[in-house]
Amino acid sequence: MIIVMSHQATPAEIKAVVDRVEEIGLKTELSRGEERTVIGVIGGNAYAYRDAFSHLGGIQEIVPITKPFKLASREFRRQDTVVDVGGVKIGNHEVVVMAGPCSVEGEEMLLETARHVAKQGARVLRGGAFKPRTSPYSFQGLGEEGLKILRRAADAHGLAVVSEVMDTPQVPLLTRYADILQIGARNMQNYALLDAVGEQPKPVLLKRGMSATIEEFLLSAEYVLARGNRNVILCERGIRTFEKYTRNTFDVSAIPLLKRLTHLPVVGDPSHGTGKWYLVAPVALAAVAAGADGVLIEVHPSPDHALSDGFQSLTFENFNALMTQVAAVARALGRGVGGPVRI
Amino acid sequence: MIIVMSHQATPAEIKAVVDRVEEIGLKTELSRGEERTVIGVIGGNAYAYRDAFSHLGGIQEIVPITKPFKLASREFRRQDTVVDVGGVKIGNHEVVVMAGPCSVEGEEMLLETARHVAKQGARVLRGGAFKPRTSPYSFQGLGEEGLKILRRAADAHGLAVVSEVMDTPQVPLLTRYADILQIGARNMQNYALLDAVGEQPKPVLLKRGMSATIEEFLLSAEYVLARGNRNVILCERGIRTFEKYTRNTFDVSAIPLLKRLTHLPVVGDPSHGTGKWYLVAPVALAAVAAGADGVLIEVHPSPDHALSDGFQSLTFENFNALMTQVAAVARALGRGVGGPVRI
Amino acid sequence: MIIVMSHQATPAEIKAVVDRVEEIGLKTELSRGEERTVIGVIGGNAYAYRDAFSHLGGIQEIVPITKPFKLASREFRRQDTVVDVGGVKIGNHEVVVMAGPCSVEGEEMLLETARHVAKQGARVLRGGAFKPRTSPYSFQGLGEEGLKILRRAADAHGLAVVSEVMDTPQVPLLTRYADILQIGARNMQNYALLDAVGEQPKPVLLKRGMSATIEEFLLSAEYVLARGNRNVILCERGIRTFEKYTRNTFDVSAIPLLKRLTHLPVVGDPSHGTGKWYLVAPVALAAVAAGADGVLIEVHPSPDHALSDGFQSLTFENFNALMTQVAAVARALGRGVGGPVRI
Amino acid sequence: MIIVMSHQATPAEIKAVVDRVEEIGLKTELSRGEERTVIGVIGGNAYAYRDAFSHLGGIQEIVPITKPFKLASREFRRQDTVVDVGGVKIGNHEVVVMAGPCSVEGEEMLLETARHVAKQGARVLRGGAFKPRTSPYSFQGLGEEGLKILRRAADAHGLAVVSEVMDTPQVPLLTRYADILQIGARNMQNYALLDAVGEQPKPVLLKRGMSATIEEFLLSAEYVLARGNRNVILCERGIRTFEKYTRNTFDVSAIPLLKRLTHLPVVGDPSHGTGKWYLVAPVALAAVAAGADGVLIEVHPSPDHALSDGFQSLTFENFNALMTQVAAVARALGRGVGGPVRI
Repeated sequence: MIIVMSHQATPAEIKAVVDRVEEIGLKTELSRGEERTVIGVIGGNAYAYRDAFSHLGGIQEIVPITKPFKLASREFRRQDTVVDVGGVKIGNHEVVVMAGPCSVEGEEMLLETARHVAKQGARVLRGGAFKPRTSPYSFQGLGEEGLKILRRAADAHGLAVVSEVMDTPQVPLLTRYADILQIGARNMQNYALLDAVGEQPKPVLLKRGMSATIEEFLLSAEYVLARGNRNVILCERGIRTFEKYTRNTFDVSAIPLLKRLTHLPVVGDPSHGTGKWYLVAPVALAAVAAGADGVLIEVHPSPDHALSDGFQSLTFENFNALMTQVAAVARALGRGVGGPVRI
Repeated sequence: MIIVMSHQATPAEIKAVVDRVEEIGLKTELSRGEERTVIGVIGGNAYAYRDAFSHLGGIQEIVPITKPFKLASREFRRQDTVVDVGGVKIGNHEVVVMAGPCSVEGEEMLLETARHVAKQGARVLRGGAFKPRTSPYSFQGLGEEGLKILRRAADAHGLAVVSEVMDTPQVPLLTRYADILQIGARNMQNYALLDAVGEQPKPVLLKRGMSATIEEFLLSAEYVLARGNRNVILCERGIRTFEKYTRNTFDVSAIPLLKRLTHLPVVGDPSHGTGKWYLVAPVALAAVAAGADGVLIEVHPSPDHALSDGFQSLTFENFNALMTQVAAVARALGRGVGGPVRI
Repeated sequence: MIIVMSHQATPAEIKAVVDRVEEIGLKTELSRGEERTVIGVIGGNAYAYRDAFSHLGGIQEIVPITKPFKLASREFRRQDTVVDVGGVKIGNHEVVVMAGPCSVEGEEMLLETARHVAKQGARVLRGGAFKPRTSPYSFQGLGEEGLKILRRAADAHGLAVVSEVMDTPQVPLLTRYADILQIGARNMQNYALLDAVGEQPKPVLLKRGMSATIEEFLLSAEYVLARGNRNVILCERGIRTFEKYTRNTFDVSAIPLLKRLTHLPVVGDPSHGTGKWYLVAPVALAAVAAGADGVLIEVHPSPDHALSDGFQSLTFENFNALMTQVAAVARALGRGVGGPVRI
Repeated sequence: MIIVMSHQATPAEIKAVVDRVEEIGLKTELSRGEERTVIGVIGGNAYAYRDAFSHLGGIQEIVPITKPFKLASREFRRQDTVVDVGGVKIGNHEVVVMAGPCSVEGEEMLLETARHVAKQGARVLRGGAFKPRTSPYSFQGLGEEGLKILRRAADAHGLAVVSEVMDTPQVPLLTRYADILQIGARNMQNYALLDAVGEQPKPVLLKRGMSATIEEFLLSAEYVLARGNRNVILCERGIRTFEKYTRNTFDVSAIPLLKRLTHLPVVGDPSHGTGKWYLVAPVALAAVAAGADGVLIEVHPSPDHALSDGFQSLTFENFNALMTQVAAVARALGRGVGGPVRI
């Protein structure tokens, strides 16, 4: 961190800042220029303490030089983290497709969906047993019963399971049934929950909050990593903007930006990211073209009868068409059967 | 809810929509015009089910006529809800000031602050014992010890206590020590937590999420109300926009808008809402002028030494000046000693 | 347009609305339901007059059924508009690449750039002669001299020219030298300028405003179309959000959404859309994968010495790599040698 | 400006940056620390040239130390600028109210409005003769005829006139009829227009763009000031956010922030800022409480029959009530009859 003192800062003001910074236990380094003085503050986490002195007289600007996330950063670990979910490798070579309905609505529909998406090349089955719903009057999910159904359907077709956990007391239940624990966008800064999933062994799929900056997103990942769980998958799922036609604005540039800033795998969720089924395929292809390690796609045997998010779910037929195009784009960028992502 | 069918919708398409809606258990009412057909759907909560048919052919637009929140709405309850916190009435006549440090840092500083703000007319002591921090490396609060200190300091000076709860297992602890349980902006859509505070007896101060619409804000209040707790205080604390000078953009228009849409009390938090101490006073006055039932103000005996948010805390001296101005503006709008809020 | 009357609307209120609407010259159509009355208003442009009655008692909601843009809509013209720029067809089959420096800085650098990008397959040369700069103290462009240089460089290498027009009196000058007149994001709602380019014969490339909704974007296109110029190319170039790492957030979903709502060609500008050279290639590929009819790429022989936007310009070498990948992705989606865009 | 070199920057990289900066004609100053090197760049406008070297190897961060606006800044001029419009002083002591209809619709309605608002204490008559309308099919204003009507109505009641100019060729016309030339939000970055109004003698009321940062807003003011016109009034009128209930989000904190950063007067426009008549009064009071030098209020003798923006106009009766409350709040803050604004 660098503290830039103003033009008119007096020697007493400079001394007060240095004293205060050292009182906190950080080391300083003074650079006196002709025009102004700059105080370097040494210590990776100095910026977190800026509130303790940002107030002082004579300060013009405080500049964070080291990024506030550490374990998540490319500087900390240069090679890509590859999350291994029972043999499915996320973050390595292939585009991993995670597909399934928004909510688990019953055994039959889930078995049918699992069979279909597995045949088309999906490797992970998605589906919510606990559903965060904006209204208390909407369908809230089947709970543990839904998790059991998910597990059976996935096992029957050789798929892994990703499902959302919404509250700390639910964590053991999810750890038992799912292969990947999803933290939803609304809980991206639920720090108690981040701590809890950081202390259990299963990989975590962390969705970007609706209005989270990239830096906040990586700091939330840092919470999980700091508790010892190094298998975090980041998921871009659209941010909130003024646009009204789409439910969210899918931030495609977040994908290559994250791949540059962090070693963690990055996937995209065009279903929530757009909220309209007819935008899912083009945006999924865009995510793959931009370097995503995978995509989450909502698929429903009969979207017209879905209990939630039917409007953004693909039919089996549309899902098949998308899988063909995903494979074509991946191959075009040298990723087909094991080629590396190039950004 | 009204379903507007398109110009070219066929009779078969219209029938399919009607059938699907009635299959869910809702009543329909057809209006065939010369140009197009409109299907009215009766039942207060119909819009929550729109996913189940929004997909069908021939639909042009689905319009929610009744608002999705019910218990929170002015239609449900015309007169203002007044939350009584041990004699302090929020939502009735006077502007209630809640003041204190961002975090509880120790007993001495809290006693000093409580004494000072009580003397100036504040009625509620604020202070965080559990702190949601963006970085896992920042100060995370004193926990139960902090709650005990808060309680002692408040009792010593006749103040009520408001403090944040961050996770469902913490709820009983907060209910024991605090008079008002605060749900922070990051947890506004932590539904498990909303359910939990809805089932305990203490009033709840619900902060607006960083990028929550007014409708989502009221739907989160609805979660608490639906569990039986009718004492919810809404708090505008700034929303996230592209502006970089301020930490958030304080949405002052949310105050009169909420007073129109809901019967619940509405307070403003200009400290988090602006993030800069020199904007706190003018924005607090703006909130009062716009009709707020109260304001939350961060005050610290020595902001330069605060462990969090020092940059947005007022000194005792600045707090005194603000209290004088708040009283003057309140009186100017007829609210001085018990006059009603006029919007 | 549909006017939904409230539950409690009196017959007198309903009559007042009907009378007022007909006073303006629009036809109404009443649908009385059991629960409420709905007034249909006939006439494509009715919604533009809503201010004249939105005030009246008893109205619950006013719903625009027909979209406010007409000439730009898919309903008006089902087949794709193909803009022909001296033989370069935009909106038809191939991905058209428009490349060049941000500003025209001199003849030599422009000739060198034109030669290079033409050899790599670009069809249009971009470059600003008049530059909109946030600061009055930044380089403002070479003016007419810049246009002459652009023209010579393009002619020498068989390229068309696209360049920005900033003010109505400049229009004739641009019409003389350029093949496509660009309206910049900051002028998307400069209606006098939209009228002026609508009355000259050259195609118009209209950039989306920094915070323009899709509907506003199409209404600005409508201004140009309404003046008789039917050759409008829409350009997504990123919108303003809270994210700070990127200059703008490239809204990739706008591409397939626009292709659905309008018959006009849609291109993407990942250089301005991201503001960082290392994001240009992945976002350009994303735009193509999502169905863009072309991309605008900033290329500079020596980005380190660019007078503007050097940070987002590609070197010749990076541009070559991108062209190879663009071709691969286009081919993968069946667009290579004349295949249609499939969304 | 300060260039912070990275940890690993080589001496050759440091030299390359220094050379490049000096090649542009700026002076450098090196501070070599133990951990890293910082290059100070001297010259007020250095930051505008950052594109020319931001690319170079070894740079970690470029920090603008001096603000990019100069003539508009408090550093340039410490005392408040007071704009004198025929004796009406804006920026000095009193809260100046500017009122009138959105558009000039006819002579009679304007005379009636002018008479009414003048009697209630307004000092400036507002009204659009040229109207920027999102749709080309909406009412576009009466043009010069409207300006003549405005002038006559204002003169009859001792008011000054503020009216919008939309295009450079219109500037002389506006200068002839109006006392203050308004630049609308959509034209805040129409640089040709800013230059043109900077070269004529009448004061300019500059509205903040829909998604303009405070820094961009002040840079647009800088364009006008740099051309020699020092009478610029800044107007906060709401920014675009995700909220849908209100047309814009009135950024009340912008008022005290601007008063701190610049010496120019700052007024608020709650009519456009909220878009709903029932929010105009509370937000106008908030603006005054936050320190605004004035407010613009849309008033219409019969809002139900307004040709534009009827939904946000006050009736005469509501305007009267607001004027009483504005006076009360101003007095409460010591501004009544000539007291200074205190922030």
